[in-house]
Amino acid sequence: MKSPLRVAITGAAGQICYSLLFRIASGEMLGKDQPVILQLLEITPAMKVLDAVAMELNDCAFPLLHGIVTTDDSAVAFKGANIALMVGAKPRGPGMERADLLKDNGKIFNTLGKVINDVADANIRICVVGNPANTNALILSKNAPKLNPRNITALTRLDHNRAVFQLAEKTGNNLNDVTHMTIWGNHSTTQVPDISNAMVAGEAATSKVDNEWAENDFIPTVAKRGGAVIAARGSSSAASAANGIIDHVHDWMLGTAEGDWASMAVPSDGSYGIAEGIIFSYPVTCKDGEYSIVQGLELSDFIKGKIKESEAELIDERETCSDLF
Amino acid sequence: MKSPLRVAITGAAGQICYSLLFRIASGEMLGKDQPVILQLLEITPAMKVLDAVAMELNDCAFPLLHGIVTTDDSAVAFKGANIALMVGAKPRGPGMERADLLKDNGKIFNTLGKVINDVADANIRICVVGNPANTNALILSKNAPKLNPRNITALTRLDHNRAVFQLAEKTGNNLNDVTHMTIWGNHSTTQVPDISNAMVAGEAATSKVDNEWAENDFIPTVAKRGGAVIAARGSSSAASAANGIIDHVHDWMLGTAEGDWASMAVPSDGSYGIAEGIIFSYPVTCKDGEYSIVQGLELSDFIKGKIKESEAELIDERETCSDLF
Repeated sequence: MKSPLRVAITGAAGQICYSLLFRIASGEMLGKDQPVILQLLEITPAMKVLDAVAMELNDCAFPLLHGIVTTDDSAVAFKGANIALMVGAKPRGPGMERADLLKDNGKIFNTLGKVINDVADANIRICVVGNPANTNALILSKNAPKLNPRNITALTRLDHNRAVFQLAEKTGNNLNDVTHMTIWGNHSTTQVPDISNAMVAGEAATSKVDNEWAENDFIPTVAKRGGAVIAARGSSSAASAANGIIDHVHDWMLGTAEGDWASMAVPSDGSYGIAEGIIFSYPVTCKDGEYSIVQGLELSDFIKGKIKESEAELIDERETCSDLF
Repeated sequence: MKSPLRVAITGAAGQICYSLLFRIASGEMLGKDQPVILQLLEITPAMKVLDAVAMELNDCAFPLLHGIVTTDDSAVAFKGANIALMVGAKPRGPGMERADLLKDNGKIFNTLGKVINDVADANIRICVVGNPANTNALILSKNAPKLNPRNITALTRLDHNRAVFQLAEKTGNNLNDVTHMTIWGNHSTTQVPDISNAMVAGEAATSKVDNEWAENDFIPTVAKRGGAVIAARGSSSAASAANGIIDHVHDWMLGTAEGDWASMAVPSDGSYGIAEGIIFSYPVTCKDGEYSIVQGLELSDFIKGKIKESEAELIDERETCSDLF
């Protein structure tokens, strides 16, 4: 059997993690032959609830779960970690400006970046979920110089999966008939869900739906889906966010599906003219634990314009937080 | 690809199902090559929350999820169902006697049994989770004469998994080193977690722990674990209960692990001298969708006595509800 991988997870007593941890422990994220040690971080007041989560994880008798660490000390949580899922973040409170949210979370990811730099495995792979996810990932990266910056990513897979569903529903196809979906840009309302290259049952999506729907219905529906779930459910997406995390890490580590790609927010290398260094969602293929940005896609002027708007937002976020680098 | 199986689930907007549905849709229960259609039943006031759950299921873009039905009409939920997971039940309220709880839930399972009898697939396999699970399953069975009574079971796999963890922790072994655990009897505090035949890393468990622990510590710890989780978590086990359901149905349909067995509450055929017909937890092996009660195990007088107590409770429950047959 393989050696266990250490998976550090923040916000571990929260709702997303209650849907996430059990799926990781069952082998859904890293494979049915890969033991894991869960290293769970919470703030001190949440430790009692976290201990209850640990009881329930034990009560599943997962064969792949080789250990659980519960702690409110980040140096313990990230020690030797091979993978980190940064789920916890400070939510936006009433009357709080977006810049305040950026700054408050920036400070958290500044601190955690330094800790990870000091105690984690040097080859650690990180997925940032807590919002503003892209810029939190950038701040973490800037404070963790020992790590490979390529390995610090943010989650747009939930948006990607939401987009796949919207297109499948619109065309009356099964979910597994939809491939080559793309989310470009920031995990925010400026994100660009793009069907330009998507396929539905082997045919171009653009031949199955009209442009009006793709631009004026599909994009805002996907970008605002989180709000629609909150309105219906009374609380924010948890199980579907957890599933996005599972898919993100699964595909990164074990490979994207043959003949398809996924969306991941990764450090821009300048592809598609995007400013280098910002954490930008691109279509990627993955193999053997490495991702590659898909090159050479043709984009309409409309999509190019939307992408530039999302890039501008990310550059602005970077400037707001530049004192945290 | 295989034809989809229809999985009907009650209490679908509740906490257990929020942990359960996503794992079923991902293929954890019935296999990664088995599409499913989820047929979700709730009471009318919970339909809005259930619709939000359906939104999130869609937002996972699970390739195996070929459809979702949400309804407050049991005839719709169970129509053509191949598998039913009876998660919903009326909880015990303040000042409510156990007999009242039995009667109130008995009426629900009486009604649902008749509906399932009329509209479900004749070969439907049923796992009852809502308490009192064993007797609810019996009432359902008595009201569904067209079904094969062997296919109406109740959940003790959560207790089984809890017992595996307790023994692994006590002996300092990994969870996958523990095999041949048994839960006998009723899913209640009279249940009999039994290590008589359990193995730990290939050696008899009884050679690794003393009898005093097995009788006076292990048994009550497992039987009262649900209460300990409530005390720590502030609400009852959800993700671990969902996992027990996944394991129960997975092993039933796809087979128990080679060289091991599982615990399932099934109609007694008189094995081990238990009254025929009551739904009693036994060690079982499963293959090709059929279970067999493990025969010929040697039991101590202590375990035999405990089993008789649990049998007596189930016979008493049957009598309390006999007007519902």
